[in-house]
Order: sequence, then structure tokens, then C-alpha cells
Amino acid sequence: MTVLDRLSLNQATVKRLGVPGAVDLCARHGIAAIGLWREPVAELGVKEAAAVVRAAGLRVSSLCRGGFFTHADPAARTAAIADNKAAIAEAAELGTGALVLVSGGLVPGSRDIGLARRMIADAIAELVPVAQAHGVRLGIEALHPMFAADRCVITRLGEALDLAAGFPGDAVGVVADTYHIWWDAALASDIARARGRIVSYQVCDWTLPLPADPLLGRGHVGDGYIDFPPISAAVAAAGYAGDIEVEIFNETVWGAPPDETAATVTKRFPLAF
Amino acid sequence: MTVLDRLSLNQATVKRLGVPGAVDLCARHGIAAIGLWREPVAELGVKEAAAVVRAAGLRVSSLCRGGFFTHADPAARTAAIADNKAAIAEAAELGTGALVLVSGGLVPGSRDIGLARRMIADAIAELVPVAQAHGVRLGIEALHPMFAADRCVITRLGEALDLAAGFPGDAVGVVADTYHIWWDAALASDIARARGRIVSYQVCDWTLPLPADPLLGRGHVGDGYIDFPPISAAVAAAGYAGDIEVEIFNETVWGAPPDETAATVTKRFPLAF
Repeated sequence: MTVLDRLSLNQATVKRLGVPGAVDLCARHGIAAIGLWREPVAELGVKEAAAVVRAAGLRVSSLCRGGFFTHADPAARTAAIADNKAAIAEAAELGTGALVLVSGGLVPGSRDIGLARRMIADAIAELVPVAQAHGVRLGIEALHPMFAADRCVITRLGEALDLAAGFPGDAVGVVADTYHIWWDAALASDIARARGRIVSYQVCDWTLPLPADPLLGRGHVGDGYIDFPPISAAVAAAGYAGDIEVEIFNETVWGAPPDETAATVTKRFPLAF
Repeated sequence: MTVLDRLSLNQATVKRLGVPGAVDLCARHGIAAIGLWREPVAELGVKEAAAVVRAAGLRVSSLCRGGFFTHADPAARTAAIADNKAAIAEAAELGTGALVLVSGGLVPGSRDIGLARRMIADAIAELVPVAQAHGVRLGIEALHPMFAADRCVITRLGEALDLAAGFPGDAVGVVADTYHIWWDAALASDIARARGRIVSYQVCDWTLPLPADPLLGRGHVGDGYIDFPPISAAVAAAGYAGDIEVEIFNETVWGAPPDETAATVTKRFPLAF
């Protein structure tokens, strides 16, 4: 087994392909796993998407995404919980044990970051039994602090881990995405204490300058500033042996021919080890 | 004494004024302290700048900035040390006990963030006796993680503090700038353990969207997402009783009439407490 056997293409990297196109691309390039997103899955229908993936013999490394738990309006909060329960069921139907959570930014109209964090913890608590019933783990993803106000107040792997630690390990863990966490001086020690809690490991590079939309500043492995091998080694040392996703949000990558993107992903992936 | 007695205008907020113009602005608006930058000070001459500030009866809350210690080229490193020694002497001549350090990003040609951090620690060690001889404290500023690659690998107040703790407290401390550190779940506990080490406290707001140049995305207190009062209370509880700078890098603010900026700064400042 080589590292390439663990490569998973997160379909956001080839955003303009639907599920069948992305699945076909993986099959053509010998990529054995795929990370799916709910929107394209819904376009095809969950059952049909599951069938397409199964027919191609691919593993589904994760489903993106649940979360967005921080609402001032109780009805919106109730809707978010319901939507996350649906996402858990979809993950199970798609055959993945990992649902990635982007937990949400500040509560609209409030600057109280502690309130947002408590709201996230409360929501996860409500989802735990549903996750357990479906055999799906919720992966709390720490997002880069530049997204704290509007997307995710959970900003460090260590913080995600502290939050996860309050719940059973078969229901809640963390997602480690190099783009979001590479800068953290506590990263090595936080990964070490994440043993048993790593639900997903995602790699892409930090490039500069940041684009006008900072969500889209990710690069192929090797195009930027991240020193991947020590991070990958720490993740392995912490016992994570699952699929490793390449997830790149980048207008240029999205505009490239998907086969070129898949070839670059495959070629660069070993540089992360 | 009210909080307004502790307001200091960092001159970067009115970047297009020189030292005399910024000093005059402070005097007109009843602002008792100013944070100076080396470039405009050098334009006027250090001795003359010190005289202008003294004549106006202003306190100098800090000098910005030393740092940029991370160089692959030994000659560049030697030059950086010499430049920082000069900055310490300038701070003393200007009558401030605080030199703000922006420590530097990754070493050119290297992705080893640990190497950059060790280089910073080594440089600070070399500067400690010079700082002590001049009665100036080096304030290690944690910059927002989005600047880790290119400007400062020290990304959290806690990390700055861990670094400072290796040196005598009369020589090395930390700078707490709300813009850079507001998102950190460990902020309250890190501020509490910063007792005796806070060299400067700076306030400005996190606004969205990020501008094309992410260095310039800061807003007036109240224009963005930061919950200032708990942070200011924690800084006060940690024993910091010095001047509090408003430092805003923002093209719109720079384009506004300086008197309007000073009026807004003065009006908004109490909202931070």
C-alpha cells in the first residue's frame, strides 16, 4: 500500500462536475475514494448518488457538510438541527462514517463569541444520539481564524478537540485541514492528543496573496507555504489511517480541465508525506 | 481619571500626517499620548521628533516597530539586529519604554515554521541587554494567523507570552492588539497569565469583507465584530494601566480628514470598555 491508495478527491476541488462526473474522474485516475458535498448529492438524489459511487467501487471518505448552528432565531436553530439530522442520514446512506461540520460564526446581531461556542456545543449534544444511531461521526472542523466572525468560531484544532472531548468518541471527533491549522504553534501537540478523534485529514496549501474572496485562496500541495510532511507524520503517529482528502477551493483550479486537476492532485499528493 | 485619559493615537491611523501634524492633531483633540512609527520619525529626525512631542506635552506610548528577524542570509540577519538596536535607542530618545516587534514570517526559501520561531528567539536574546541598557521593553506582537507566512509566525497571544517568558520581564513583554487576537478561545486565560508582561494594548475592530490588501481591513471600534469590553476588562485585571492605542490601517480612514478621524477615535474609544 502506498500513500496514493489513501488519496481521496474532495469533489469541491472539481466543483463544476456533478457527482457522476467526479466519480468518473476518480475512476479514470485511479483515485479510490471521494469526499462528497450535500448540494451536488441532492441534485442527483442521495440514493442515486450512493449507487453511482458504489458502482464505481469508490469509498466515500466524508460528506460535507453539516454545522451552521449559530442562530439568534429559535426557528432557525430548530431548522439547523433538523438539517443536520438529515445530513447524518445522508452520510450513512452514502456509506461514509464522517460528516464534516462547519459550526458557524457569531450569532447574528451578537458579538458574544462565547455564546456562539455554547450554541455549537448544545447543538452537537443534540445530534450525538442521531450520529450514534447511524454509525456516523461528526467531525468538528477548526476553520482559519480569518473566518471566525462569519463562518466558524472554532478556530484551532485544540479548540475543536476540547469541544469533541465532551462527547463520546464514536459520535464526535475533529477534522484536521492543513489550510486552516498549519500556523499554530501548538499543532504538533494538539494532533498528538487527537488520537482516536481524527475523523478526517484534508490537505491543501496556503498561497499568497489572498484572493478577493478569502475562501478561494487554497492551492495544490506544493504551491504555497505549508510544510506538510511533519503534519502528516503527526497525524499518522496519532493513529489516523483513513483516507486523506485533497480539497481545494480556487477559481483557477475550478477553471482548469478536471483531468488536469486530477493529474496534478495525484502528482502532488506524495509531496505531503 | 477617565478611560479617555489613557487614549493614545497610533500615528498609523492618520498615516498621511507627519509627526508634527499627528502631534498637533492629538493636542487639538485632547489626546494625551501618541504611538509613533520609525519612518515618519526618521523623516523629521529623531531628536526633532522627540522635541515636537515634548513641546506638545504628549506621552509616547510606543514606537513601531522592530522585528523582521527571519532571514536566510546571515548578512541580512546581522543588519536586522543592528536595525533593532537602533530602534531601541530611538525609542529611548523619544521617551517611550515600548518597542513593538513584528517578528517576521517564514524564512525566505523555507517552509520550516519552527526554524523561523527559533530565529526570532535568538534575535530577541541578542537584543535583551540592549533593551535593558536603554530602559526599553520589547513588545512581541502576535499577528493574526493570516499573516503567518509573510509577516509574523507568532500568531497567538499565548505564543508571544511563552516566548517572552524566556526573557527578563524588564526587557521583553507582549503587545495585545484586539484585531489580531480576538478570535482565540484561550484569550481570557492568556491575558490573565500575561500579568506584568503587557507592554502595549491596542484596539481596533475586525470588519468584513477583508479588503484586497488584508493588512488594511481594520475598522474603528464599533464598526465590526469584536466584543471589546471583556478583552479590555481582562487586560485591566492583568494589571495593565498604561496607554491604550487606537491603531487603524484602512484606506478609507486614511482618506478621511484627520480631524474627523480623531473625533471618531475619541468618540468610539469608550465603547471599548
